Amino acid sequence: METYDIAVIGGGCAGASAAMYGARFNLKTIMFAEQPGGLITTTHLVENYPGIKSISGPDMGMVFVEHAQVSGAELNFSRVNQLSKEGDLFKLGTGSGDFMAKTVVLATGTKHKHLGVPGEEEYANKGVSYCALCDAAFFKEKTVAIVGGGDSAAIEANIMTQHAAKVYVLVRKDFMRAEPVNLVRIEKDPKVEILYETEIAEINGDGEKVTYVILKSGDKLELDGVFMAIGHDPQNDLAKQIGAELDGRGFVIVNREAETNVPGFYAAGDITDAQFKQAIIGAAEGVYGSVKAYEYIQEKFGKE
Amino acid sequence: METYDIAVIGGGCAGASAAMYGARFNLKTIMFAEQPGGLITTTHLVENYPGIKSISGPDMGMVFVEHAQVSGAELNFSRVNQLSKEGDLFKLGTGSGDFMAKTVVLATGTKHKHLGVPGEEEYANKGVSYCALCDAAFFKEKTVAIVGGGDSAAIEANIMTQHAAKVYVLVRKDFMRAEPVNLVRIEKDPKVEILYETEIAEINGDGEKVTYVILKSGDKLELDGVFMAIGHDPQNDLAKQIGAELDGRGFVIVNREAETNVPGFYAAGDITDAQFKQAIIGAAEGVYGSVKAYEYIQEKFGKE
Repeated sequence: METYDIAVIGGGCAGASAAMYGARFNLKTIMFAEQPGGLITTTHLVENYPGIKSISGPDMGMVFVEHAQVSGAELNFSRVNQLSKEGDLFKLGTGSGDFMAKTVVLATGTKHKHLGVPGEEEYANKGVSYCALCDAAFFKEKTVAIVGGGDSAAIEANIMTQHAAKVYVLVRKDFMRAEPVNLVRIEKDPKVEILYETEIAEINGDGEKVTYVILKSGDKLELDGVFMAIGHDPQNDLAKQIGAELDGRGFVIVNREAETNVPGFYAAGDITDAQFKQAIIGAAEGVYGSVKAYEYIQEKFGKE
Repeated sequence: METYDIAVIGGGCAGASAAMYGARFNLKTIMFAEQPGGLITTTHLVENYPGIKSISGPDMGMVFVEHAQVSGAELNFSRVNQLSKEGDLFKLGTGSGDFMAKTVVLATGTKHKHLGVPGEEEYANKGVSYCALCDAAFFKEKTVAIVGGGDSAAIEANIMTQHAAKVYVLVRKDFMRAEPVNLVRIEKDPKVEILYETEIAEINGDGEKVTYVILKSGDKLELDGVFMAIGHDPQNDLAKQIGAELDGRGFVIVNREAETNVPGFYAAGDITDAQFKQAIIGAAEGVYGSVKAYEYIQEKFGKE
């Protein structure tokens, strides 16, 4: 069985950045990309990645993966199901067999929680968004709804008021579980209307874009955008298997250089406890992960 | 006098990323770019910025600055000479007058120390490089010299051995001031030859690229590349003026979110104490700086 220097698990912006740097260090690098390009491929337009003024989400995902490949990283589309230590090496179990690696960069990201109502899938990227920070600028002077009752819903509503003309916040319960400072801000903002005990039953539009939603009360709410802020599920199964320390929400705790508590095991991108989940942050973490992996390999295994 | 929300000082990758994000938050953002594009514009080719497979240094600098501009940041080519607090605001003194800002992101970077020998300027980017991590891959199977006696010279020599066929290390003194682990590695590496008490007198070539150097001993050393590893001077005058905490080498100490010890004052890019000076790291720090500036403004000044 071949031993890789770096096994990157995840093929999004963070993983591909790690794989690209690893390969450029002349390290034998493999990237497991079950979903090449990662979550960014589900965004319609990205205009906030420094140095790339405007690019579609799918194109951005592709260019990151290509960048890793032209740098010499090997690409594998298998899902990694199992991760363990075997002596000094990591053992990765996949549907296409086992792989051994001296180091691992985990970049498995998150999954957006979905509301699960009719119209949500149909209008994804046509008015339905899962990232206010990414997409707010596309809704200048529009009417939008933020769905959620947590702190991120309050923060995202606040961001939206910088752009949209009118911002509904649709809260399932009769209160919001947001930081007081964030809650007070949106309560005071004349652009914001918080509707408690309110749930969307159905998202509708003209086929091209969202134009209204039907609430469970039967009321109709006309709007141009629906932003889901109901959370993310970190894909942390492998982190748990290898004993990486997680924060209270299940994200992998890393330091500024993407190191975890497990030597030789790094994490990058949306799976980490970084305060902002942005492509540029994840890419930088990926780079740090590979640089630290390079140092670790030099230290532990010497040059070969 | 107009008050800006964010004043970014420096127009390189880190500064432009901060300005771009600031503008996208709908914050009134100005970027002072005495040298638009920053130090990367002095690199001939950049192939390790995730998402941009290959770009010339000057083009990369330009696209970052343009990205900030199309996002709505104002560009000013003045040098900022003075920085102080005036009440809750920062006051920036420039040749074109004073500017007030609620927050500052410092991204003034560093200057590479130069050797100051004949041929050094002529062959810059034609074999003379100031960044092994950036340019090592362009010297596969070539003969190169690393100039320097410090830890970074040892580290860069080590990086070069992954690519070059032969690596000279030219050390002015009769010893190297490198971490033992790094020194031992290059001492043991058959590709590396350390020449103590050796200084370059002159860099020569065929007009297109470096082909040899003349040493102060009069000896001629045939090679394809000369990597200067004699250090960087952080451009920290403004950081000192505002009372930001510096590390022992004069770099601004920041946390993972680009915050300094001075509220409302952030730092990003090569001016920070980040372990790796890479465009991707600086860009991420710039983004963090603007995100934290946004939060600070909301907190301290409220929404306007």
